[in-house]
Amino acid sequence: MTKAQSFVTLTYLIETVGHPEKLAAKIASDQSTGTFVAVPGETEELKNRVAARVVALRPLPPLAVPSFPSAEAGPFNRAEADIAFPFEAIGTDLAALMTIAIGGVYSIKGFTGIRIIDMKLPEEFGRAWPGPQFGIPGTRRLTGVAGRPIIGTIIKPALGLRPPETAALVKDVIEADVDFVKDDEKLMSPVYSPLEARVKAIMPTILEREQKTGRKVMYAWGISATDPDEMMRNHDIVVKHGGNCAVININSIGFGAFAFLRRRSALVLHAHRNGWDILTRHPGLGMDFRVWQQFWRLLGVDQFQINGIRVKYWEPDESFVSSFKALAAPLFDAKDCPLPVAGSGQWGGQAPETYEKTGRTLDLMYLCGGGIVSHPGGAGAGVRAVRQAWEAAVAGIPLETYAKDHKELAQSIATFSGGKGA
Amino acid sequence: MTKAQSFVTLTYLIETVGHPEKLAAKIASDQSTGTFVAVPGETEELKNRVAARVVALRPLPPLAVPSFPSAEAGPFNRAEADIAFPFEAIGTDLAALMTIAIGGVYSIKGFTGIRIIDMKLPEEFGRAWPGPQFGIPGTRRLTGVAGRPIIGTIIKPALGLRPPETAALVKDVIEADVDFVKDDEKLMSPVYSPLEARVKAIMPTILEREQKTGRKVMYAWGISATDPDEMMRNHDIVVKHGGNCAVININSIGFGAFAFLRRRSALVLHAHRNGWDILTRHPGLGMDFRVWQQFWRLLGVDQFQINGIRVKYWEPDESFVSSFKALAAPLFDAKDCPLPVAGSGQWGGQAPETYEKTGRTLDLMYLCGGGIVSHPGGAGAGVRAVRQAWEAAVAGIPLETYAKDHKELAQSIATFSGGKGA
Repeated sequence: MTKAQSFVTLTYLIETVGHPEKLAAKIASDQSTGTFVAVPGETEELKNRVAARVVALRPLPPLAVPSFPSAEAGPFNRAEADIAFPFEAIGTDLAALMTIAIGGVYSIKGFTGIRIIDMKLPEEFGRAWPGPQFGIPGTRRLTGVAGRPIIGTIIKPALGLRPPETAALVKDVIEADVDFVKDDEKLMSPVYSPLEARVKAIMPTILEREQKTGRKVMYAWGISATDPDEMMRNHDIVVKHGGNCAVININSIGFGAFAFLRRRSALVLHAHRNGWDILTRHPGLGMDFRVWQQFWRLLGVDQFQINGIRVKYWEPDESFVSSFKALAAPLFDAKDCPLPVAGSGQWGGQAPETYEKTGRTLDLMYLCGGGIVSHPGGAGAGVRAVRQAWEAAVAGIPLETYAKDHKELAQSIATFSGGKGA
Repeated sequence: MTKAQSFVTLTYLIETVGHPEKLAAKIASDQSTGTFVAVPGETEELKNRVAARVVALRPLPPLAVPSFPSAEAGPFNRAEADIAFPFEAIGTDLAALMTIAIGGVYSIKGFTGIRIIDMKLPEEFGRAWPGPQFGIPGTRRLTGVAGRPIIGTIIKPALGLRPPETAALVKDVIEADVDFVKDDEKLMSPVYSPLEARVKAIMPTILEREQKTGRKVMYAWGISATDPDEMMRNHDIVVKHGGNCAVININSIGFGAFAFLRRRSALVLHAHRNGWDILTRHPGLGMDFRVWQQFWRLLGVDQFQINGIRVKYWEPDESFVSSFKALAAPLFDAKDCPLPVAGSGQWGGQAPETYEKTGRTLDLMYLCGGGIVSHPGGAGAGVRAVRQAWEAAVAGIPLETYAKDHKELAQSIATFSGGKGA
């Protein structure tokens, strides 16, 4: 009984025409002991043991324009509130954590903005969840890549290719000596390209190449399916034919299905987070990636797509950098760090900035679509150009200088530095 | 080959400093055939078969203030765009539908606002998914309630009670002749109230009452768990002890876990949507309930919480009414309609307006917390007051008039009409 109580502590960015401290207190009350009715027995003592408490409140400058449209006049007051939930009130279940500390909060009246900006979990969570099965060391071992980023590409068009057509494209990029290839996340198992037919059309090329070179390209198969049993059948098809990786639409299948898969998986699990953007794109609403990624890391994501520098999407560079740093920081142990995957519009030109801004690490996957397959010298030249760009980045040599005696990089600069890539 | 092609059609509310029609075209391109590279063979024909197309664009008045904060000056142009995805491009998988037509869209650059406001699915979806197992007729049969709404209550405080304390509260409300009782959605299986202990403490009371009266209260147990196997163990505990309903935190467990449960479930599945609010609370961002509810109905929700009139939460009445109407409209068949559940701050006073605004139906659950248990005459009087309020609503008699010879209702009006309830 003398063991110190442990807490789950969340930080909320609260915005309101009223007093942020009142809303912070309301979160703590509503999301734990709530509307309280006196009942017999030890209830007061229990309340003390499970009630959440506001442990810090840091006022921020008010906003003139509210995050949720409001009929009321501003200013819209803001504060960061740290609220501590006794561990006993939640336990280690992630769905319980989501419902109690996050989900229910979004429905509370009186906010003109609400964003969950940080979460600190006690060690019990680290012991309760498996974390990545392969992570960074497993990805390096399976791809045989050391001393540089894993270089990957994506098969395009996203939708519409039949398996033999996809296989022809895959053959090209594998012969280009790329380390990793993935199905577009939108390609799962449509009638024109059922997963099993696609696997059967492509795996022989991968295995032949492995026989010849000793190196096996890691191919991330789109095994996601709503029904976890079907997803496991897809998983088994990939395993049976010698595959070693899957791309999972984590947000579309949800926590439960991912937990189910992870517990049974023999594959490296590459997470695509489509759908996540709407939860984070408005800076006053939703959730920071630093919070959301904790759930998925505990659940066992091995490789985590987080955009990159100068991407095609809405996300600004500093948001990518912050996501990268969140993934690179151990939650409880270095083994719970997945491999960050930088992608979208990448072609090598962003290598120096990626390297400098993410803490000079080579532990990442660098995923290029058009930056490899649309290289004027072909995909092989595209892969060499990307490797050269990373060599230059690590050596601290400007790309233009390094390109003087590296012609593939020179061609990439000429082709893509206007901002194209894919 | 002459069979007409079927389509999945979504409507997007697009907001941008640029041209909405360009962003509509970008959604259609990015989310189907995407970045297109010429490849050998039948690709053009396949592209024609899977490419999404903008089929209608309806301009709306521009906004002066953007939904996502923007450094650019307005006006912020808006349009509703209908985009048709060939059925073949998606298939019936709901995770594929979410990723292709919704999830990926949120990441596209150039929006100052993006909201999914409608979705029309072809009949193939109705055949592919189970829908509600019990729905409205099953709930009526199991509760034995006809000709009026199902009246329910929630055990409070949300967190902190041990099983014997919860059992004492449940005994009170069951003796009050309520039709339905639920665990607070935040109560799942914490150490101080493990589900099995709670079930064992409470089910005997429910079964005894059934023996005595022939009527069995429907109790919704908080069986949600991240791990679908654990959720099924929770399900089995409830079934083994004679329970017939579960409250599920659908957003916290996700599509896959819910599909897994539904396929194996012997319980009525009562959906709590905590977490959903952040996806719909900003009118220019996220998703309308009319879209989101389709996924969950196909997956098999039996009872769906959607707030109510004059709730404690942020949601305005018209949003509740619109959600109610969405649930009451068959997707493919009347059997796919779950029972709408009106709750939060209800005590009977909202019955007339609820009845009038939702199409004069009695097919709903009316869930009162404090409105029943805090009635000055006790929970039994609280239940009678709520029934009286619904009798008055159906007869078109003002509550104050009906209360003249219905003293429990009169007491409720005196106690709660200042807006209290729970």
